[in-house]
Amino acid sequence: MTLFEARLVTAFVDGAGSSREDRVAHEEPLEIQVQGVSCAVVMRTPGHDEELALGFLATERVIESVADVVSVRHCTTAEDPESEGNVIRVVLRDGIDLPLERIRRNTYASSSCGLCGKATIEAALSHGPPLAGGLTVSAEAIYLLPDRLRAEQGAFTETGGLHAAALFDDGAVLSFVREDVGRHNAVDKVVGAALREGVPRNERGLFVSGRVSFEIVQKAAAFGVAIVAGISAPTSLAAKYGDALGVTVVGFVRGRSLNVYSRPERIR
Amino acid sequence: MTLFEARLVTAFVDGAGSSREDRVAHEEPLEIQVQGVSCAVVMRTPGHDEELALGFLATERVIESVADVVSVRHCTTAEDPESEGNVIRVVLRDGIDLPLERIRRNTYASSSCGLCGKATIEAALSHGPPLAGGLTVSAEAIYLLPDRLRAEQGAFTETGGLHAAALFDDGAVLSFVREDVGRHNAVDKVVGAALREGVPRNERGLFVSGRVSFEIVQKAAAFGVAIVAGISAPTSLAAKYGDALGVTVVGFVRGRSLNVYSRPERIR
Repeated sequence: MTLFEARLVTAFVDGAGSSREDRVAHEEPLEIQVQGVSCAVVMRTPGHDEELALGFLATERVIESVADVVSVRHCTTAEDPESEGNVIRVVLRDGIDLPLERIRRNTYASSSCGLCGKATIEAALSHGPPLAGGLTVSAEAIYLLPDRLRAEQGAFTETGGLHAAALFDDGAVLSFVREDVGRHNAVDKVVGAALREGVPRNERGLFVSGRVSFEIVQKAAAFGVAIVAGISAPTSLAAKYGDALGVTVVGFVRGRSLNVYSRPERIR
Repeated sequence: MTLFEARLVTAFVDGAGSSREDRVAHEEPLEIQVQGVSCAVVMRTPGHDEELALGFLATERVIESVADVVSVRHCTTAEDPESEGNVIRVVLRDGIDLPLERIRRNTYASSSCGLCGKATIEAALSHGPPLAGGLTVSAEAIYLLPDRLRAEQGAFTETGGLHAAALFDDGAVLSFVREDVGRHNAVDKVVGAALREGVPRNERGLFVSGRVSFEIVQKAAAFGVAIVAGISAPTSLAAKYGDALGVTVVGFVRGRSLNVYSRPERIR
């Protein structure tokens, strides 16, 4: 699976046009089927699809660990060859509830078309109290994250079209760097990878290459990660979610400065 | 209506934290009701809501001109004071079909959770042949657009959290500059404003501050705008939509260079 596709483009430099091959971020649909039922279709960059499906189910609060999953694999019997590789099937252990209506509503909601912010905050809080405790980290460590992420992020420099996400620890060590055309997908891939490895969630923060949206704060809270930092800005709703869900939201990590928008007690 | 909200943040510069007021991009839900029926909820930056609703209905191919619209106004009888200003009601003239199922499916699809790319391209094409003819523009004119957009884009420099979009003509003159936390919303606001003014669509291109996603190409095609240019990269699906829908997709407009990913015949 490739993060990008080759494409013939016409480049105009100083007004003079010439043909050359360029690379664009690869984007295709992935249908996630659970217990044989179509659960969601996400537009994603192919690759790490199993992690994406696991992370999606974890941040939708369907599964808590890989012990809840019997199997996750691509469907190899797709009738349409074009959809080969674009359907993934998850089988959960007996007894796991699959709240289809909620997932479909959330997927809808988390894709920038949501319920009212108040209602979704209340829904998110209904799963339990706000996060407390967890990792604390120095501002000095967070300053290091953008360069470290870029160093691992090959495809962004190729195409400029991919979001990246990763976990970090209090020593600014990154793990599970993942890239995707979709902001949420990159986060779900990180979460799925961390779930597989059994990483202690309350000792990690989540770092993203771009803006911090409220959906990302919500996903972090669902997974139990209490610090979310981004190179760019959070929205007003992301900061409010941070307050309500007990997540420290950090934005504008640039050079030797950053801003903390909620729960600053975790930043030293 | 403000594009941003004030928020108290903890800023860490060189490791030293201090409290100060920052501005974050304002984000709230807007429910669009048509003929009394809830049609979509979008997470948007408040302001230009009427244009957003009109542009949404135009790019969903429900309306063709303002003559199809009897009225568009905020609901002033919301029972919950928090939702005051976040519901907009559109009344269409008799005889306009409201394909609710399709709109809900598209809104779902256009929010990065879609049907298979092939199916959606086929659905988009079912509305008519690809765009032909229309504006041609020199690369020299397009080089001017990023600086001109930034000059009009106050809130981005304030918060870094907003997308901007505008129409442009062959002299690189911008019109209807609009900003929003949501990429699609900024485009819908531009389309709604242009619809109100009755701008000749085939003499304008669409310029966006960030990436060119396939949804934006789809919206431009639905409105009849045949050139879409962005400061950053298109995705592979955006380029394919450009080919299929007859839209010229231009990316990486930086300094004196740009790339054309589809239908290069409109760039001189």
